[in-house]
Amino acid sequence: MTIAESQRLDASDPLAFARERFRITENLIYLDGNSLGALPVAASAALTRTERQWGDDLIASWNKHEWIDWPTKIAARLAPIVGAKPSELLITDSTSVSLFKLLASAAAARPGKRLILTQQANFPTDLYVAQGLATMLGLELNAVPAEEVLAAIDSDTAVVTLTHVDYRSAAIHDMRAINEAAHADGALTVWDLSHSAGAIEIDLNEAGCDLAVGCGYKYLNGGPGAPAFIYVAEQLQNELTNPLQGWMGHAEPFAFVDDYRPAQGILKFLTGTPSILAMAALDVGLGTFDGISMADVATKSSKLSDLFVSDVETRCGSEVRLASPRDPAQRGSHVVFAHPEGHAVMQALIDRGVIGDFRAPDLMRFGFTPLYTRYADVVRAAEILGEILQSREWDQPHFKKRAKVT
Amino acid sequence: MTIAESQRLDASDPLAFARERFRITENLIYLDGNSLGALPVAASAALTRTERQWGDDLIASWNKHEWIDWPTKIAARLAPIVGAKPSELLITDSTSVSLFKLLASAAAARPGKRLILTQQANFPTDLYVAQGLATMLGLELNAVPAEEVLAAIDSDTAVVTLTHVDYRSAAIHDMRAINEAAHADGALTVWDLSHSAGAIEIDLNEAGCDLAVGCGYKYLNGGPGAPAFIYVAEQLQNELTNPLQGWMGHAEPFAFVDDYRPAQGILKFLTGTPSILAMAALDVGLGTFDGISMADVATKSSKLSDLFVSDVETRCGSEVRLASPRDPAQRGSHVVFAHPEGHAVMQALIDRGVIGDFRAPDLMRFGFTPLYTRYADVVRAAEILGEILQSREWDQPHFKKRAKVT
Repeated sequence: MTIAESQRLDASDPLAFARERFRITENLIYLDGNSLGALPVAASAALTRTERQWGDDLIASWNKHEWIDWPTKIAARLAPIVGAKPSELLITDSTSVSLFKLLASAAAARPGKRLILTQQANFPTDLYVAQGLATMLGLELNAVPAEEVLAAIDSDTAVVTLTHVDYRSAAIHDMRAINEAAHADGALTVWDLSHSAGAIEIDLNEAGCDLAVGCGYKYLNGGPGAPAFIYVAEQLQNELTNPLQGWMGHAEPFAFVDDYRPAQGILKFLTGTPSILAMAALDVGLGTFDGISMADVATKSSKLSDLFVSDVETRCGSEVRLASPRDPAQRGSHVVFAHPEGHAVMQALIDRGVIGDFRAPDLMRFGFTPLYTRYADVVRAAEILGEILQSREWDQPHFKKRAKVT
Repeated sequence: MTIAESQRLDASDPLAFARERFRITENLIYLDGNSLGALPVAASAALTRTERQWGDDLIASWNKHEWIDWPTKIAARLAPIVGAKPSELLITDSTSVSLFKLLASAAAARPGKRLILTQQANFPTDLYVAQGLATMLGLELNAVPAEEVLAAIDSDTAVVTLTHVDYRSAAIHDMRAINEAAHADGALTVWDLSHSAGAIEIDLNEAGCDLAVGCGYKYLNGGPGAPAFIYVAEQLQNELTNPLQGWMGHAEPFAFVDDYRPAQGILKFLTGTPSILAMAALDVGLGTFDGISMADVATKSSKLSDLFVSDVETRCGSEVRLASPRDPAQRGSHVVFAHPEGHAVMQALIDRGVIGDFRAPDLMRFGFTPLYTRYADVVRAAEILGEILQSREWDQPHFKKRAKVT
């Protein structure tokens, strides 16, 4: 596609207006919103307002500005994004801690069963958290290839935990099929939505999901290290307990009694006090979805990634290999291409203002964030990638050097 | 003491300059910095700078602005405040999650022992966290009266966990004596410094402490819900594991391998990604201690609380009862007075611009934060308390109403 053609697509894009909600450096083609979402324009005022609440009203802010309600109030904004009831959502800890909490909660609810089932090459922190919990509780973690998960569920399985969209390939798991198989064997499911929430259509209720966590700082634009959200299906909220129990999840946190008595509903899954400044930023991140239909987001996501795949393949030929599903219905909102010198090529792209990232061993990852990625960005990124491969400008020592964070 | 006399003390106070580091509303007497520290003047610029890093440099900020090093770099500022080596300190999760992490780590290191020992009426979240962990691991939590802790340590004790300064009475535990008794029986200690770090002198190394956590938003001025810090004694860092293992604590977080391999030293105690905005605020909170000797802080803390005790007792007589240790050496940096209508009296105080807080059943709590509390504040607060009790202006329905957060 030519740049001019892509600009016509941008002009008729029903989501074009949403880009105004972000402060994005002109001339930067940012295809890494799946790693760290862009800065919402509203963040500055929200942080200033929150800082002023802290300064002016100090401890009284917990009542006056209702900070005490933020974990549920802000989480409720996620309801249309993930297809859940507001009362099933909560902002709590980091993604990893939230995952530990839900896995431990699920395992405790299935005391006779000794297996946590997951997939090989799952998002690393999901594997590490599950390994740690399994060691702690004397359970067994079984990691099988993605396509074997369904068949591996058995009556010994306490929990099936998977990342909805694979962080490398972008392959999507069929949530409904896995939930049904798990339930048939009496297991619970814990989904990690970090690489899908805010990018594609999700209906947790409709798919019969039990538990889920999701990252606040990728497609949800909540800022670096934003707290995660958790989802606990309504019908499980009475049955499940929170093993990471703390004062914020107590039925009467200000009674200061010695014995823990869990709050009703989703609130019992709170542990300590979440950062108010971090939650203020996450609130405006979620606000970037106001009035936007996830169907429109999903449609644009498919179009952007399809366009990228076809333009890259046209321009780069066999030099790169698509390592994501070709069918957009099987793919999240990012695309990976393999290249033997993928790391150096990505550094050369970044040097030219196209920001993606590299995932070992050879994957160049490009994320499409429908709220601010333009069709013209996609076409120009493919064009620059073609130029870099043709000129071999990636073949320089400084592009081969690995930084601390890749 | 007269206001004029107290103002002379303020004029010769070697810490008087530190008040300039905070933005405190004039005419407000804020005696609740032990619950939420005041806003540092530097917070605004730090938040703006961090937000700009996010907006301008996006994902590259992890390298360019060294966000990846913040959990250790910011924690290192605590070394002189708590008497530890910089390499023994880390900013991680909330206080409650951090406590769970350290208790679980300690329990795993003492596999034959089935007891977690603590005190009755410990800070509630400390009890709730320990109860949750004990249930999860099939351990027993033994909560004894504070004065019986030392005698209750036995060969069955895996961990002794206590709050250094009691959140109600302000009574101080003798850390060294308890550490020695614990070690004699092969137990580990986990200290909660939430009500002492930044207010009194602490020397974790000298007292032989094994593990500790502390709140970032009380005396450390890190902002509402600031992340906590943890301390792991150098000689334990190889032996202990982190059961809440996540990608940030991996030896090679960007290798994205399936198997967890812990980082060296304190870094292995990281779990997920901490909020960068929250850490930026905590950084300036800790910066309010720059160039300040904790001996000066401790001296002023004693003088402020002694002055308050004597002025209140002079003005209020037997209407109130001191419920903190009278000896300042046995007391943290807050003071509680009991009054049968303590809640209503505190609301009347707040209405007059004296901000303390209430703790059930009848305790009015007043915190003294040596960096910004003035001698004149203390004298004026005691004077207003005397007026309120004499006039019985607390005896009004709206002062008896309980707010959501007390």
